[in-house]
Amino acid sequence: MSEGFAPVAPPDAGVRAAAEQRQASLTKPPGSLGRLEELGNWVAACQGLCPPRQFERARVVVFAGDHGVAAHGVSAFPTEVTAQMVANFQAGGAAVNALARVADATVRVVDIAVAADTDPAVSAHKIRRSSGAIDRADALTSAEVAAALAAGRAVADEEIDAGADLLIAGDMGIGNTTPATVLIATLTGTEPVKAVGRGTGVDDHGWMRKVAAVRDAMWRVRPVARDGIELLRVAGGADIAAMTGFLAQAAARRTPVLLDGVIVTAAALVAEDLAAGASAWWVAAHRSTEPAHTAALTKLKLDPILGLDMRLGEGSGALTALPVLRSAVAVLAEMATFADAGVSTAAAPTEDADSPAIDMRK
Amino acid sequence: MSEGFAPVAPPDAGVRAAAEQRQASLTKPPGSLGRLEELGNWVAACQGLCPPRQFERARVVVFAGDHGVAAHGVSAFPTEVTAQMVANFQAGGAAVNALARVADATVRVVDIAVAADTDPAVSAHKIRRSSGAIDRADALTSAEVAAALAAGRAVADEEIDAGADLLIAGDMGIGNTTPATVLIATLTGTEPVKAVGRGTGVDDHGWMRKVAAVRDAMWRVRPVARDGIELLRVAGGADIAAMTGFLAQAAARRTPVLLDGVIVTAAALVAEDLAAGASAWWVAAHRSTEPAHTAALTKLKLDPILGLDMRLGEGSGALTALPVLRSAVAVLAEMATFADAGVSTAAAPTEDADSPAIDMRK
Repeated sequence: MSEGFAPVAPPDAGVRAAAEQRQASLTKPPGSLGRLEELGNWVAACQGLCPPRQFERARVVVFAGDHGVAAHGVSAFPTEVTAQMVANFQAGGAAVNALARVADATVRVVDIAVAADTDPAVSAHKIRRSSGAIDRADALTSAEVAAALAAGRAVADEEIDAGADLLIAGDMGIGNTTPATVLIATLTGTEPVKAVGRGTGVDDHGWMRKVAAVRDAMWRVRPVARDGIELLRVAGGADIAAMTGFLAQAAARRTPVLLDGVIVTAAALVAEDLAAGASAWWVAAHRSTEPAHTAALTKLKLDPILGLDMRLGEGSGALTALPVLRSAVAVLAEMATFADAGVSTAAAPTEDADSPAIDMRK
Repeated sequence: MSEGFAPVAPPDAGVRAAAEQRQASLTKPPGSLGRLEELGNWVAACQGLCPPRQFERARVVVFAGDHGVAAHGVSAFPTEVTAQMVANFQAGGAAVNALARVADATVRVVDIAVAADTDPAVSAHKIRRSSGAIDRADALTSAEVAAALAAGRAVADEEIDAGADLLIAGDMGIGNTTPATVLIATLTGTEPVKAVGRGTGVDDHGWMRKVAAVRDAMWRVRPVARDGIELLRVAGGADIAAMTGFLAQAAARRTPVLLDGVIVTAAALVAEDLAAGASAWWVAAHRSTEPAHTAALTKLKLDPILGLDMRLGEGSGALTALPVLRSAVAVLAEMATFADAGVSTAAAPTEDADSPAIDMRK
């Protein structure tokens, strides 16, 4: 069942300690930048470099895939929207495109399981047309799970080999909050009625159908609930399996990740299950309005940067938080030290204020 | 007592309504960008323009000033730091400089009441050396209050006339959380022990001295507590008075403002008191760890964008939030509509998807 996943080594603790020491030497009261200091230290530890480098190639990969359960009335939108939105991403007209321009990131779309044909430029990694209707049938075959995990890992490798120094996974797929909710509710022990949200905006009757679908799928998945690979096969989907491989491989390749919303975080929960320690390479970008998202973040012990009541997916929450992460890098990398600037400190003069850059990158 | 302040007209409600309508036509589920949608609509209403323009000249003005109360042990840092930090701002080495580079903003420093001499390039608006020790004496004379308010308004006019389309006030001054806390606690009816925080990092004994100083100043200010101008004279300071004039004038000139932390928000509370309606032109950037900040935000009915436990001042919180505001503008201005992108909607096709840009700017 390992599918080649190994435990993941953590970011560099020595560089993190050097970053903490550097924070104390910068011209600000110790700790006064709050969460920005923690985030900067995390980036330094991931890069193995203090002070850290600003991200030069932040990259979003949107994993598109449809879900058979959408035919059972769990979404406010028809399945045809997925392929239309893939074209919209390619044309640069979606939220993820506008947000990427602000955040200085670039966007790639990958069709993993869209129900329709898409542009060959985005369908090289396609596993199948739509995943199964998980309330009544398995999402995938075992071979498809393996292929989807491998596709996600291959995409991560392609991006890291091309120079990506920060990765974001985004989602696009009508009905995809249903399998995400099933995976999270199963792995966190959450009741369906407490885990199911409105997705992109389903009405009361749709919400009730969604609760029923989640409950049925959770019943189906119960015998394999302790096995991440089997979970993906029975109640996940090809897009979510690909994201799982992508997130695990990013961690294995020592590349930091900003997690987006409920779909990506469901994949993250499975990835941490398969590749223990991977979550140390991830920061949660935001807290969406989907209740299952909060359950997953709690389980992963991740505290999101933003809380803006977003619920779009696509990587939109991660991109909105990316400038905050850039800010964290900038203060740690660019601020003057007390010694450099000739500024008096609160207590005794700070030691090591002029310590040179430390590079412990292996 | 008016000092020339008039009630402020609100941002354009018609353009806000047009922005709300446009949000519904964009290729995303209605409301799915949460707070980003509200923020984008607010910017459109401030600009009188839908879709809104991206900010081209976001400008931070750091108002520097010392406070006599610092001699009474309320701060972790010596007063000499203020002038040293002014030089650090000018050299580009402070947190505000690093954050401004990420947020595509520029920084100006204005010496309003630094205890030492500073570069003539930043001291044209200087009112005096340090403000009075408010636990025992008045902060300013009436003439100084008027001059400081006028200085802040003049700075706002200079920036807006030079093309600033978003303004941020920042603070720098050892001891400045003490007068800010007195103003907020007085205007919100908060007990000193509940309003006083650690500032830049005072220890337990310093915190007790600070509570005593705040209590003494609140006692002194009680007879004039209903008069904003008198509050600034008895228990404020020249830097805070200048920020008050700056924030009120920005609103009068229909220029949006991102509010920073506790010092700026204390000035904002007084500015709203003097120029009713001004707060409609402000958005709160973050919630600092200072308890008085939350009291002021609650009174102003402002819900901060970020909660990152920052407590530095300088405009650092506002600059960290600025890219979020830019993201809000970008999605409203740049996203494709359902009609443009040929994407199916949840319900009936959206009307007015191709409505032209509306310019109601006076």
